[in-house]
Amino acid sequence: MRPSQRRPDQLRPLRFTRSFTQHAEGSVLVEFGATRVLCTASVAAQVPPFLKGRGQGWLTAEYGLLPRATSERTPREATRGKQGGRTLEIQRLIGRSLRAALDLPGLGERTITLDCDVLQADGGTRTAAISGAWVATHDAIATLLASGALATSPLVHQVAAVSVGVYRGEPVLDLDYAEDATADSDMNVVMDETGRFIEVQGTAEGCTFSRAEFDILLDLAANGIDEILAAQRAALADTLPDRDLAGEANG
Amino acid sequence: MRPSQRRPDQLRPLRFTRSFTQHAEGSVLVEFGATRVLCTASVAAQVPPFLKGRGQGWLTAEYGLLPRATSERTPREATRGKQGGRTLEIQRLIGRSLRAALDLPGLGERTITLDCDVLQADGGTRTAAISGAWVATHDAIATLLASGALATSPLVHQVAAVSVGVYRGEPVLDLDYAEDATADSDMNVVMDETGRFIEVQGTAEGCTFSRAEFDILLDLAANGIDEILAAQRAALADTLPDRDLAGEANG
Amino acid sequence: MRPSQRRPDQLRPLRFTRSFTQHAEGSVLVEFGATRVLCTASVAAQVPPFLKGRGQGWLTAEYGLLPRATSERTPREATRGKQGGRTLEIQRLIGRSLRAALDLPGLGERTITLDCDVLQADGGTRTAAISGAWVATHDAIATLLASGALATSPLVHQVAAVSVGVYRGEPVLDLDYAEDATADSDMNVVMDETGRFIEVQGTAEGCTFSRAEFDILLDLAANGIDEILAAQRAALADTLPDRDLAGEANG
Amino acid sequence: MRPSQRRPDQLRPLRFTRSFTQHAEGSVLVEFGATRVLCTASVAAQVPPFLKGRGQGWLTAEYGLLPRATSERTPREATRGKQGGRTLEIQRLIGRSLRAALDLPGLGERTITLDCDVLQADGGTRTAAISGAWVATHDAIATLLASGALATSPLVHQVAAVSVGVYRGEPVLDLDYAEDATADSDMNVVMDETGRFIEVQGTAEGCTFSRAEFDILLDLAANGIDEILAAQRAALADTLPDRDLAGEANG
Amino acid sequence: MRPSQRRPDQLRPLRFTRSFTQHAEGSVLVEFGATRVLCTASVAAQVPPFLKGRGQGWLTAEYGLLPRATSERTPREATRGKQGGRTLEIQRLIGRSLRAALDLPGLGERTITLDCDVLQADGGTRTAAISGAWVATHDAIATLLASGALATSPLVHQVAAVSVGVYRGEPVLDLDYAEDATADSDMNVVMDETGRFIEVQGTAEGCTFSRAEFDILLDLAANGIDEILAAQRAALADTLPDRDLAGEANG
Amino acid sequence: MRPSQRRPDQLRPLRFTRSFTQHAEGSVLVEFGATRVLCTASVAAQVPPFLKGRGQGWLTAEYGLLPRATSERTPREATRGKQGGRTLEIQRLIGRSLRAALDLPGLGERTITLDCDVLQADGGTRTAAISGAWVATHDAIATLLASGALATSPLVHQVAAVSVGVYRGEPVLDLDYAEDATADSDMNVVMDETGRFIEVQGTAEGCTFSRAEFDILLDLAANGIDEILAAQRAALADTLPDRDLAGEANG
Repeated sequence: MRPSQRRPDQLRPLRFTRSFTQHAEGSVLVEFGATRVLCTASVAAQVPPFLKGRGQGWLTAEYGLLPRATSERTPREATRGKQGGRTLEIQRLIGRSLRAALDLPGLGERTITLDCDVLQADGGTRTAAISGAWVATHDAIATLLASGALATSPLVHQVAAVSVGVYRGEPVLDLDYAEDATADSDMNVVMDETGRFIEVQGTAEGCTFSRAEFDILLDLAANGIDEILAAQRAALADTLPDRDLAGEANG
Repeated sequence: MRPSQRRPDQLRPLRFTRSFTQHAEGSVLVEFGATRVLCTASVAAQVPPFLKGRGQGWLTAEYGLLPRATSERTPREATRGKQGGRTLEIQRLIGRSLRAALDLPGLGERTITLDCDVLQADGGTRTAAISGAWVATHDAIATLLASGALATSPLVHQVAAVSVGVYRGEPVLDLDYAEDATADSDMNVVMDETGRFIEVQGTAEGCTFSRAEFDILLDLAANGIDEILAAQRAALADTLPDRDLAGEANG
Repeated sequence: MRPSQRRPDQLRPLRFTRSFTQHAEGSVLVEFGATRVLCTASVAAQVPPFLKGRGQGWLTAEYGLLPRATSERTPREATRGKQGGRTLEIQRLIGRSLRAALDLPGLGERTITLDCDVLQADGGTRTAAISGAWVATHDAIATLLASGALATSPLVHQVAAVSVGVYRGEPVLDLDYAEDATADSDMNVVMDETGRFIEVQGTAEGCTFSRAEFDILLDLAANGIDEILAAQRAALADTLPDRDLAGEANG
Repeated sequence: MRPSQRRPDQLRPLRFTRSFTQHAEGSVLVEFGATRVLCTASVAAQVPPFLKGRGQGWLTAEYGLLPRATSERTPREATRGKQGGRTLEIQRLIGRSLRAALDLPGLGERTITLDCDVLQADGGTRTAAISGAWVATHDAIATLLASGALATSPLVHQVAAVSVGVYRGEPVLDLDYAEDATADSDMNVVMDETGRFIEVQGTAEGCTFSRAEFDILLDLAANGIDEILAAQRAALADTLPDRDLAGEANG
Repeated sequence: MRPSQRRPDQLRPLRFTRSFTQHAEGSVLVEFGATRVLCTASVAAQVPPFLKGRGQGWLTAEYGLLPRATSERTPREATRGKQGGRTLEIQRLIGRSLRAALDLPGLGERTITLDCDVLQADGGTRTAAISGAWVATHDAIATLLASGALATSPLVHQVAAVSVGVYRGEPVLDLDYAEDATADSDMNVVMDETGRFIEVQGTAEGCTFSRAEFDILLDLAANGIDEILAAQRAALADTLPDRDLAGEANG
Repeated sequence: MRPSQRRPDQLRPLRFTRSFTQHAEGSVLVEFGATRVLCTASVAAQVPPFLKGRGQGWLTAEYGLLPRATSERTPREATRGKQGGRTLEIQRLIGRSLRAALDLPGLGERTITLDCDVLQADGGTRTAAISGAWVATHDAIATLLASGALATSPLVHQVAAVSVGVYRGEPVLDLDYAEDATADSDMNVVMDETGRFIEVQGTAEGCTFSRAEFDILLDLAANGIDEILAAQRAALADTLPDRDLAGEANG
């Protein structure tokens, strides 16, 4: 029995609150149960040096954890003077995942920066961040379309992510912190709306997993991601005051 | 006329949302109009090295700005590898202001860390942070009292803060960003419930102010702080599920 | 056709040179074709603070690239003042993978530090590093057994790793740099001697992969890892002057 | 009774030694009793990036403490790898204060950098630094006028600063270290030659102060600053070999 | 008697392995007994900012120690976040020494970066590095000549280095670690093929040396350097596949 | 002809001002012509970790340059976030040189920290710093003797330093900046009162020097150091108010 009483294949309650803050081109508070991540998408009219003059855009991500998002206070990385290995690993994952959603030449010489800041952590912050960041990216692009800066949307895929793992010998979907802390193995899966994989990261610290377990975990993840994709589309169906335009990712 | 149509002596709408996040001993979202700061108070059972064995507690503060809290994206300090001068200046101010609220020996050998993270900025983030941090400190101490860790509250003063300044030649209370960016001079005032000053920081970059203007600004600030103190007390009057105890700062 | 003329399921020539340097308890130069990584295992009689007094050991890894291991000179991380995200990601992966080989309580309060320094890079440095680091770990433990510091070997699993990917539409094993730079997708797989997975990290930057492709890639990886495990065992069969003891990982 | 036997409204002996070092455009050793600060003003023919092409100048300040300026050795900030919060706070204050003395467009696209390095500390280093930096700024501008680089002086105000505080219940002027270390409250005041305020920074760590005390402290500060302004003018009355030009701030 | 049984004026066995790695324009593994340093020379078609537009080239050096090159593991400088004083001192010495070999205007607007990474340390790493770096520099320039990028070689001097010192009261050549750790004094000498000095660095920590001892040490060094210069020339006599050109430093 | 009209073997005017600042146990302003360095010696009752419990003392040095000690402003190292290679090289040299003056076991478990801060630079700052630091060390030890903390002086040698070089083909003593900037070669020599060498650092960037030139330079240095040693002794002959004790280094 899972600590949260959920069925093995049951997601936590999902919520996407768009326009959670007012300054960013896209701003989404994503909640997977008690995990709450603020995802903002900022558009800048320039690209990093390695892309200058190539006629294409870029997307990058940064991840942070408010110090008391966790049950014990986590020291602030700005105070420690550097981002830790876990942070860098997560923000690189978010960036790669969301770049898979975009036609970068279609974005023009612009950079979208996704800031994913965890207000409250209860397991699965990186997959929640990816799922929320996709909605924020959608809204940032809608802003560009609305202003006429772009004529066609470069958002060519819908992207969502979830974690799966083996908890007390049983494969489960969308681990919360109580499960994650004692899980035998843990896998983060990122997929698009066609069912193809963007990232698969399976770790079995303190344990290992067989090919059969692996297959079951991928099935669980694929079903969970289907539900998250549907929830993203539902959130986009709501009209945003002066911003939302078209359901370019609905098809 | 102020851009927000407020009277010169009018505060923005205030809101204190307690228990905004679940892990911290005190967690308050404070809103001064569109300025929104998450203030968490964390209690640790140890003190910094310079206080070891002195039988007293400590309180310290850290301040951060989410990258897209501002209208232009502000680079993340964790990425830049250090906190800037403005951040250090603000968090030192918050720490000094809240230590004035506490009887540090009465806290025992504990440290309260206040994390003030700006989710959305529209001017006056440091004074909003101080006003919210006081409520978070109150709730953290209520937790210690409820658990029996402390028998008597060391919270001996109520503390609030506001900014005042001269905008287009007229002294005004609680400047928002539109006013702050063009103000002739700017002053942050921190006071306690008895009307005594804890900090006064007046800056007149690009201008100067006379003794007469100074006196008018202090009067405006004192009246504004009275209203903020009342709003803090009103927020504490609401019962928090399993936490709130007594109005020890009301007397 | 692969640039190296290899068959899709063909590894590059493998070589493990033990005792490549003289000071470390284990020192192995591993070569996967032109990729050459020096893996040293150092034993220290202490554990990190978070494990003090728990009666168990620890294993950690660090990764580096000599500046001219690459075809363009890579700036030295010591000069830049920090390790990059890629480095941190790789050394975390190596550490997790090798910890899966050890019974940490059986190691006692000791830390094994694996330093994996790339002398020459031609793709697949992280998987070569894991495969070589296992041999270095073996030799470091043999040193502890030979000196009587340990009575029983805590090396409970054999560990090896390889990369697989889709190159010009075809799944291939053990990508070299020419393939890696243009691969559609890339996966690093770490397994033990029983065929169970320790880590699976699949990335499809600029592309995605289907479940069917995923399955083929895992099959390729499993076969490649079998060959690497055999090469590790063959390398251990050679007697090292005054060090090698027993084939405790052969069973 | 003050430890130094001074009357409550009595400054320490002041001395401004111009041309203390030979390379800087302005170089002043300022002494407030045993507090000795070397203030140099350096002129560069460029402005920071945020001001490029705006046709105006800039002034910035840096502050340092020689390690043994203090009674206990203070670790060197260059060795610790960063400037502390106190240093940043002070140098920001010096910069704002001196910018108030200048007509920045009149300076042209030049930057004046003030380096204020404390050779010996006995309280009040930041206010001594501001008072000395004004003389150094004057001399740097005199150099520009003498060379013909500027036709008119952009030095439109005279600036001086002093600290005041409540020591053993009594308001006193210009606290030395023995007073500062035990003061109930402390205020730094920066004013110009017309009696207008540039900065007021009052702190009451461990105490608070009433409006009445505040008013008395401001009066003390205003009188002390009058004396410092006179001492600055007296120092400028001495002819400097090949440099001093005109008393443009005397009027 | 020296621990290695060598005569006082006897070098350790020398070996220069050219083309040790494949990517660098020059790549030499130099061995002085058990001291092994990988020296690579990288050519870039640009110069540092301070030389832009001056029509001359530059040469710079970086030095590193693999963590387990030493008998106790040395913490990795990339992890500690900065290069230590010893590292900076050594790489500045290598850079100055090798710039003395070059006619910098004849190099054109190019920078040669020498990376000297110690794989195994047994005393004298900096002098081995200089001696090996000269061969790597030679090969990098041969590459430029072969490609036609340069018509004439700017390598105008041959450079080698050795350490000498007083061990148990007797002057000895080419100290190994066992000698170095207990030497009374230590001197590093860098000379060219004409017998002129490029650098002399004598240190007598824990001791001092007389003018007479100094003269004997310089004689020892001069003879040792003659042998090293001969070994460098012998190494260059071997043809390198597709690279080596001419013995421009042999005359 | 030297720019300063000095004879080739002529030092600049020397001055040692003791008790230049009041807090340090030893505080000396040393002047070699226009080069002015403040040398303070601070005593702490502890040793670095690597010496704990060994019953001996330690001496270490730090070096800094005030930003406008130089004719162009040098960026502050505290602002840049690290000490440069030149600074580290110099402070290591000062530390080694002064440790040669002390019987470290005789100092007991204490550390003397020498801070050498250049107020004005005109060539030869490192050798001036060593010469001044010796006087500061003397005075710090006199303080320990006067207080009874030490019964016998551990200052067993007198130490001084000077630079020599070849300027326009002629060997000269004590180079000033005008000479140093264009010198063919440069050597720093540190000696004790018996004429033995502590350090010799000869550099010939852009040139080389013969054995014959080397010998002439050492002769020049030895004579110059004799004069500096005499000037140090003369400075110590003056009684310091409540501090100076005995000429323990004169014998």
